[in-house]
Amino acid sequence: MSAGNAPVRVALLGCGTVGAAVARRLRDRAERYAAQLGRPLELVGVLVRDPDRPRGGVDPALLTTDAEALVDGAQVVVEVLGGIEPARSLIERALRQGSHVVTANKQLVARAGEELHALAEDHGAGLEYEAAVMAAVPVLSVLREALAGDEVTSVRGVVNGSTNYVLDLVAREGVPFDEAVRMAGELGYLEADPTEDLEGLDAAAKAVILARTAFGARVGLEDVDRIGITGLGEGDFAAAAEQGRVVKLVASVHREGAHVSVTVRPESLLADDPLALVQGGTNVVVVEAVSAGELRLQGAGAGGEETASAVLGDILRVAHRVG
Amino acid sequence: MSAGNAPVRVALLGCGTVGAAVARRLRDRAERYAAQLGRPLELVGVLVRDPDRPRGGVDPALLTTDAEALVDGAQVVVEVLGGIEPARSLIERALRQGSHVVTANKQLVARAGEELHALAEDHGAGLEYEAAVMAAVPVLSVLREALAGDEVTSVRGVVNGSTNYVLDLVAREGVPFDEAVRMAGELGYLEADPTEDLEGLDAAAKAVILARTAFGARVGLEDVDRIGITGLGEGDFAAAAEQGRVVKLVASVHREGAHVSVTVRPESLLADDPLALVQGGTNVVVVEAVSAGELRLQGAGAGGEETASAVLGDILRVAHRVG
Repeated sequence: MSAGNAPVRVALLGCGTVGAAVARRLRDRAERYAAQLGRPLELVGVLVRDPDRPRGGVDPALLTTDAEALVDGAQVVVEVLGGIEPARSLIERALRQGSHVVTANKQLVARAGEELHALAEDHGAGLEYEAAVMAAVPVLSVLREALAGDEVTSVRGVVNGSTNYVLDLVAREGVPFDEAVRMAGELGYLEADPTEDLEGLDAAAKAVILARTAFGARVGLEDVDRIGITGLGEGDFAAAAEQGRVVKLVASVHREGAHVSVTVRPESLLADDPLALVQGGTNVVVVEAVSAGELRLQGAGAGGEETASAVLGDILRVAHRVG
Repeated sequence: MSAGNAPVRVALLGCGTVGAAVARRLRDRAERYAAQLGRPLELVGVLVRDPDRPRGGVDPALLTTDAEALVDGAQVVVEVLGGIEPARSLIERALRQGSHVVTANKQLVARAGEELHALAEDHGAGLEYEAAVMAAVPVLSVLREALAGDEVTSVRGVVNGSTNYVLDLVAREGVPFDEAVRMAGELGYLEADPTEDLEGLDAAAKAVILARTAFGARVGLEDVDRIGITGLGEGDFAAAAEQGRVVKLVASVHREGAHVSVTVRPESLLADDPLALVQGGTNVVVVEAVSAGELRLQGAGAGGEETASAVLGDILRVAHRVG
């Protein structure tokens, strides 16, 4: 078999909800992907902490705890571990050997995206992370490619489904705020550390990535003007309702000349604002560009399958580059 | 100057609303594009019928009537003439010499897309037409790339702004249907041949392109189950309004197993259907995919600047491929 149609070796780092969905789809859609690429995608291993724990639909023979051997044997490395370490070190290891990397890790990309891009470029490797912002909603590729010939001036969105769920319970069901937070936690809608969602840290990471992608701006988490939803009180919701408004946690990035602003904060929106209309886990983003005008993108902002859709799209994108 | 940073020679065929906007943006954004590409984009000529007619903001020295010389001297050929001939022959000429082609010509792509793609592939040329469907709304690249790892099952949309404007006048302003058609024509919202819009031919061409892009299906205009809006009567609108519904011209493509259906027809939609909410020239499309779930894309479906946004994105896309 020539290199031209030899399988592309894919390593998966992590086998949580997203990782397991990616592994299952790589198996179930193998024929389809091979036809698209002209060569198969072969999942060569899945990094887990405990290889004895069953993972729904994932071949136990693929599970491994040897991260470095797994990375070293792959041409495409897919990181869905989350957190900063060991994700960062493993991604850097992959890029240094010229392997392409796909990640869904918004905190890592927000903190270290510039360094990782530089490393990728130095080694001729691809680095993709569509899944890191709004799961299956392809806002990054739209900003980077479809609008490449345009000038984006702002992006505004509801990009955190967990807080949106909490705010919905308060606004639509009249559930007290603290109770709504408790319910969201019980349903697994909040991150293990709920401050990640409630204090707007998750939205801030996404906003940083949006600003970099939209404007090529050198912004970091420290540049985000951020207010979470924990400071909201009954009075805020009552005042909004009285004016026919809806409270949402809004992430915004704006450019004016060379100045870029990045904010995350609760806003009291008119009921017909596109951002006011989304409920629960649905995310929406409104992009303003000089020529295109207003573009709206809306869809599921979280979920294992939904996030896997974007990860798989990125895997195919970089697999086309494997020599 | 090495070939690596020599300008990319761009020919523009047509200088109507879209063509003039593309030409102006190529001039005004020259620095920005050169930075993105690592080499300048040089507009080498603009094909027009009458070079003596002034074209707002376009250098008269660029205007030419010699189509073949213009095509032969370009590495990227941008076709915004509309109609089948001479657009088709000139695009074929460009592809045969290995030049990349960007077109906004939905009727041509719907009728001859497969042949043109085959020709492009034979000669290692790129062929892009994001602007042909929903102007600045990047539905084709989302279907083809962002959702490459997913399985699209349907696409439904309001993809013709002119009929949407007419239907809005009837439903919201109570204007009689014939009068609304007359008003839309006077405002320049209808094609020169209004049956193109009113009989759903414009929407059918877009639906064919959507079906091919979403499913890789071999479908043509003859496969579209098409009903326009000219057969609608006051009774249809009254019946819809009575049920709190809204009449829209809906284009749909569905796949079930190997079977693909493509339809264009007026539908009476519930008021909270995403397709019922768009007004006037706004287009919307709802994509259903197995993993991603429902994705909604919305924006301006027509307009010179808006269409130019997509054309310019495609120009940059193919310019990256110029050796």
